[in-house]
Amino acid sequence: MKRLLIIGIGAGDPDHLTLQAVKAIAAADVFFIVDKGEVKHELVQLRQDLIQEHGRAPYRIAEARDPERDRTTPAYAAAVEDWRARRALACETLIRDELADGETGAFLVWGDPGVYDSTLAIVEQILERGQVVFDYEVIPGISSVAALTARHRIGLTQVGRPVHLTTGRRLAQEGATADDVVVMLDAHCSFAGLDDFTIYWGAFLGTPDEILVAGPVAEVGDRIRALRAEARERKGWIMDTYLLRRT
Amino acid sequence: MKRLLIIGIGAGDPDHLTLQAVKAIAAADVFFIVDKGEVKHELVQLRQDLIQEHGRAPYRIAEARDPERDRTTPAYAAAVEDWRARRALACETLIRDELADGETGAFLVWGDPGVYDSTLAIVEQILERGQVVFDYEVIPGISSVAALTARHRIGLTQVGRPVHLTTGRRLAQEGATADDVVVMLDAHCSFAGLDDFTIYWGAFLGTPDEILVAGPVAEVGDRIRALRAEARERKGWIMDTYLLRRT
Repeated sequence: MKRLLIIGIGAGDPDHLTLQAVKAIAAADVFFIVDKGEVKHELVQLRQDLIQEHGRAPYRIAEARDPERDRTTPAYAAAVEDWRARRALACETLIRDELADGETGAFLVWGDPGVYDSTLAIVEQILERGQVVFDYEVIPGISSVAALTARHRIGLTQVGRPVHLTTGRRLAQEGATADDVVVMLDAHCSFAGLDDFTIYWGAFLGTPDEILVAGPVAEVGDRIRALRAEARERKGWIMDTYLLRRT
Repeated sequence: MKRLLIIGIGAGDPDHLTLQAVKAIAAADVFFIVDKGEVKHELVQLRQDLIQEHGRAPYRIAEARDPERDRTTPAYAAAVEDWRARRALACETLIRDELADGETGAFLVWGDPGVYDSTLAIVEQILERGQVVFDYEVIPGISSVAALTARHRIGLTQVGRPVHLTTGRRLAQEGATADDVVVMLDAHCSFAGLDDFTIYWGAFLGTPDEILVAGPVAEVGDRIRALRAEARERKGWIMDTYLLRRT
């Protein structure tokens, strides 16, 4: 039987790695990497550093190119589904050709594999297709949400109160659906106008480039927008998330 | 200056500890423990094991008794607030009397300090009172939510969809407010009757006593209720959480 490990590696700080993840990385014979080939991207480098530091030689690295996703269509869910199907095929090929029976393969996932990540759905899709058989295990990781609240030294939840996790797209459509809302994947600063909220924003959490801003949306919203645009321009990418809390 | 570390130690598996938490535990001069003195409780033992394994001698342990909380009153939030205020006083006394300037004290928190835990609010309360001054840092941990979804090998979130975190009390009052709802602190199996949902339930996550059940609420609800009651009776305590996903 082939064995697969889906390993959460935290939000960007190499020390976010759990002891369980360290052991899982050490147990892998093959690391599967599916990305766009951006060799200069810090996250690619950081992932390689983690493998180099915690991998137990001899290990192999098997790579595939990430299929392009249509980011122009308004049919967001359909576009993601199509991209996932093609990504699943690329992963299936890797698992079929690069992992022998009795070996352990690993996917390293930023943050926590459970939070807005596609790897688990892709693994399910591959198993459903039935072209390749394997067992798999998921190693939880420090999500960007946990990293965000820790760096701001605030609770995610308040006593007996709910918190909603949502996307920038939905926030723009629905507004804030609770007094505490965590927003991920927001390229458009959809917090604009939510003037009865305090925002706790963080980008590049856990990395040397980390930026943190907190304050009433009306006061710090423009500064976040400017910082975000400047950082994205300078680095070519950005990963950020935020918590909105009704003031 | 006194320095305080609020360290997330994961949901029950000693290997949930992050490398950051390992380093933080090694940096502590004093560990503050505020509990009910249940020496036989496995979680108390597990926390002691973590200190023993990762603490760097010489370190001290400073203990206080956790004040009783009124669990009979219907005024839940007020009862929690009152309990917190008294717990804050107990912690303030520990920090004032047991931590010298230039030393580092640590609170070890189950799961993630941001998720339905009182420690951060208590620290804020102590600083607001102004009787003792210190700097503090929060180390994120693997929450029971991350442990739950990893063990069930499911995503917490679905593509472009929100997830709501709430309490058993609120679920009982409001029903399921989204297609994906995580419920914590539910002593009363408030999922009963939500027959259009699949439940992913877990107790004692990450420990040798871990119990996992997944399936349609209508099919597995009674089994979860029975397992929960039996385990609680046998061990004298239980920690469980679950995700409801509309089928």
